Amino acid sequence: MHQWQHQGRLQPRLFPARRAEPAMPEEGDLVHSQAGVQTTRPVQAAYGATPGSHCSRGSAMWVGRRVAELPTPAFVVDEAVARRNAERMLQRCRALGLRLRPHMKTHKTLEGGELMTGGTRRGIVVSTLAEARFFAAGGFDDILYAYPLPFDKLEECAVLAQRLEAFQVLVDSRDALAQLRRRRLARGVRWLVWMKLDCGNGRAGLRHTDPGALELARAIAQEAPEEVALAGIYAHCGNTYGCSGVPEIQAVAQATTAATLEFMGTLQEAGVTCPASSIGSTPSCSHPVADMGKLTEVHPGNYIFYDLQQVTIGSCQLEDVAVRVLTRVIGHYPHRNQLLVDCGWAGLSLHGLGQLPTGYALIEGHPDLKLVGMTQEHGRVEPVVGALDFSKFPLGSLLALIPYHACATAAMHPVYYVHAEGKVVATWKPVRGW
Amino acid sequence: MHQWQHQGRLQPRLFPARRAEPAMPEEGDLVHSQAGVQTTRPVQAAYGATPGSHCSRGSAMWVGRRVAELPTPAFVVDEAVARRNAERMLQRCRALGLRLRPHMKTHKTLEGGELMTGGTRRGIVVSTLAEARFFAAGGFDDILYAYPLPFDKLEECAVLAQRLEAFQVLVDSRDALAQLRRRRLARGVRWLVWMKLDCGNGRAGLRHTDPGALELARAIAQEAPEEVALAGIYAHCGNTYGCSGVPEIQAVAQATTAATLEFMGTLQEAGVTCPASSIGSTPSCSHPVADMGKLTEVHPGNYIFYDLQQVTIGSCQLEDVAVRVLTRVIGHYPHRNQLLVDCGWAGLSLHGLGQLPTGYALIEGHPDLKLVGMTQEHGRVEPVVGALDFSKFPLGSLLALIPYHACATAAMHPVYYVHAEGKVVATWKPVRGW
Repeated sequence: MHQWQHQGRLQPRLFPARRAEPAMPEEGDLVHSQAGVQTTRPVQAAYGATPGSHCSRGSAMWVGRRVAELPTPAFVVDEAVARRNAERMLQRCRALGLRLRPHMKTHKTLEGGELMTGGTRRGIVVSTLAEARFFAAGGFDDILYAYPLPFDKLEECAVLAQRLEAFQVLVDSRDALAQLRRRRLARGVRWLVWMKLDCGNGRAGLRHTDPGALELARAIAQEAPEEVALAGIYAHCGNTYGCSGVPEIQAVAQATTAATLEFMGTLQEAGVTCPASSIGSTPSCSHPVADMGKLTEVHPGNYIFYDLQQVTIGSCQLEDVAVRVLTRVIGHYPHRNQLLVDCGWAGLSLHGLGQLPTGYALIEGHPDLKLVGMTQEHGRVEPVVGALDFSKFPLGSLLALIPYHACATAAMHPVYYVHAEGKVVATWKPVRGW
Repeated sequence: MHQWQHQGRLQPRLFPARRAEPAMPEEGDLVHSQAGVQTTRPVQAAYGATPGSHCSRGSAMWVGRRVAELPTPAFVVDEAVARRNAERMLQRCRALGLRLRPHMKTHKTLEGGELMTGGTRRGIVVSTLAEARFFAAGGFDDILYAYPLPFDKLEECAVLAQRLEAFQVLVDSRDALAQLRRRRLARGVRWLVWMKLDCGNGRAGLRHTDPGALELARAIAQEAPEEVALAGIYAHCGNTYGCSGVPEIQAVAQATTAATLEFMGTLQEAGVTCPASSIGSTPSCSHPVADMGKLTEVHPGNYIFYDLQQVTIGSCQLEDVAVRVLTRVIGHYPHRNQLLVDCGWAGLSLHGLGQLPTGYALIEGHPDLKLVGMTQEHGRVEPVVGALDFSKFPLGSLLALIPYHACATAAMHPVYYVHAEGKVVATWKPVRGW
C-alpha cells in the first residue's frame, strides 16, 4: 500500500482552506457569473469563491487573480512549498558541509533556479544545451552541463565556455576528450571537465571498478593541462528510483558515495588531482547518509516540486508536493459511471501508468476517485469502487491532480502558475527544446 | 507479428539515398570538421555527408542546411510524405463526395493546416482554445472547436464566434446549452453548435440510442433559434485504435456511420433540422466504407504524419510515416551491450511502452535494435538479440527514430524541421498550451 493512501488529510498546504478563513472574492476582482464555473467543495473551499472568465492569452494577466479562475488544464506551483523544499535542501547540505549544485531539469525556469541556489545564481546543473544558454542568459554562472558531451553541440559549448566564468562539461570516453582537444579554447581558457562515473545506475559513465576510469581521469587531468582540466567526478544514483522507503534509499546513497569516494582515493593515490566529487538524485539527497559529507557536492533536482513518485519512493511526504494540474469537469456519463475532465496526456503526460491505485494521478481531496485513462485532451475519472455521486461534481467543477512525475508533467506546460494563499503571485516560463 | 516487421526496406522515402546519387556537400555549406559528427552508414547515405556544427539557437537558420546537420534530438517531417498523405485524404473524400474537415491536434501548425485543407484554410477541427485562437489569427476560418464546451472558456469562445465567419462549438449536455444561452452573442450572430454523439467510443457524447440525444438535439435546434443553431452531429470513432487490420477498422467505421446516419434519420423524422454529420479517426478515414459517403464530413487528423501505431492498426504502410526523431549516439557501454542516444522521453514521449518488439520506437534502418528505456534526455538502445557491433555506431552517429504516436512526440517539440531530399526546407512552429 502506498504511503499517501494512509493520509486522511485532503488539503495539502497549497490551499488557503488551511487558514482560519477561506479566501473570499475581493472588490475589484473580475467575476463574470455567466461563466458559471463551479468548483467541488474541497477545491472551492481551498481556492476561494466563484472563478471568473478569461479573455486573454497572456499569462501575466493572471497574477493577482484567484487560482480557481485559471483556465484549465493549468500547472500550478505552491510558492511556499517549493521555497520550503529548496530551503530544506540547502540546510541539509550546509549541515553536511556539502555544496548544493541543484539540477534545473525539472522546472527549467530562472525563478526555480533562483530559489534552489538560495539567490546566488551560481552553481547549477543542466541537462540540455537549451537550458545552459537560457540560464547563462539569465545571469547564472558556474553551470555544469552534466550530459555526455554531444559532439554536434561542441561549438556552442565552446561559446559558453569562453563567455562564462565556469561552464563545465562532462565526458565518459576518450573520444569525447579528443573532441574537446580538437576544439581548443582561446584566451587561455581551459575546458572544465567532469568525468562521469557509473556507480550502479547503469546509464552513462564508466564503472568505478573499470581500469579505464582511472586512465580517462588521468588523461583529462594530465594529457593537456593547458587546454583541459579535470574539474570533478560525477555520479548519478538514479537507481534510487527503484527504492521503496528510506532504508533502501540510504543503502543506494551509501553504495554510490562509497564507490565515488573509493574512486577519489584511487585518483589521489595515482597522483591525479581532482578537486570535486558529486553524486545526486532527489531520493538520496532527501535522506543523505553521513558519508556524503565527504563529497564536495550533490546535485538533486526534482525536490523543488517533488511528486507522487517521490512520495511512493519515500523521498518526501504528500504535503511536500508543490505542484498540481488543475482541471475541470467537462462531462457526466452515468451509464458508465465516469466523469470527463479537461486534462489528458497533453497536460499530465502518461507517466505513472500502472504505478498508482488511483490511476495516472491522485485527485486531491478525492482519494476515492481514479484517473483511469487519458487521450490527448480528455481524462476519464471514475470511483475506485462504487457509484459516482455526480451531484458533487457539476460541469465546470475544479479538480486538482497531483502528478506522478513532476518533471514529465512540467514538460507539457508552457507556463507555470505560482500561487500563495489561493492567488496567483507569479508566472514562470520554462525553456524548452535542446 | 507487426506489419512493419516484414518490411525489409530500411530507407523509407524520407531519405535521398533512394535517389540515384546520394546528396553531397555543396559549396557554401558550412562544414566544421572539428565537430567530428559521424553518421551510421544508412543515415549517412540518406542525409548526405559530414554534418557541420551549429552555433545559433534560431531554427530558421537551418533552412537550406542538410538534415544530418541538425542538432538532436530533432523532430523532422518529410514534406513530400506529409503532402502526399494530405492529398490522398482529400482525394479519398472527394471520391466519396464528403467534405474533409481535418483535425489540427496532431501538428498544431499553420503549415500543416494549409496542407490538410488543400490551401483553402477553411473547415478545420481543433481540440484546444489555444489552437482555435492560433488558427484564427493565422487566417483560418470555419473552425470547429470539437471539445465538450469548457465553461471557463466561454467568453473566449464568444469572442471567436463574433469575429470569425464560422466558429463552431460542441456540446453534449443541457448544462452546456444553458451556458451558451446565458452568453448571448451580439449583432445577430448565433452560436453554431454541434452535438457530440457517442457511437461506441465511450468518451464524450450522448449515446445515439439514448432518448436524451434526440431531446438535446431538438433543444439546440429549436429552443432559441435566434440565439443557437444546430450545425451538425459529431462522432469520433476513437475505438478504431483498438483495431488490427482493415476489416476490423471498417467494421468500426461501418458501425459508427450506421449509428450516426440512424440518428440523423431520427432527427429528420422528428422534424429537427440538422445540416451536417461528421465522423472521424485516422484509421476509419484511411479505409472508408461506402456508407460514409452519406455523411456530410469526416474529421481525421493524425494522417498527415501517421506513425507506428497507425501502421500497427493497419491505417497505413511504414513508408507513409512522415516523421522521425533524429538522435545521436552519445555513449558506448559494451559491458551491458548498450548504446546511449540523446533522445529520452522529453524528445519522444513514453507512448508506445510495451507496444512494439523494438521498444518505444523503430530505429530506421536498424530493425535489429531496440529502444529499451528512456529517462528525460537519454535513451538506451540494445540489440533485440545478440551482441552489438559498436563499430557501426561511433559516438556522434545519427539514428532516426520512427515514433509510435506522432501526436505525442510532436507535442514534445517546439519546432519541426521539414525536409526534402535531405535538406531542411522549412521550420514549422506549433502552438502549445490551452
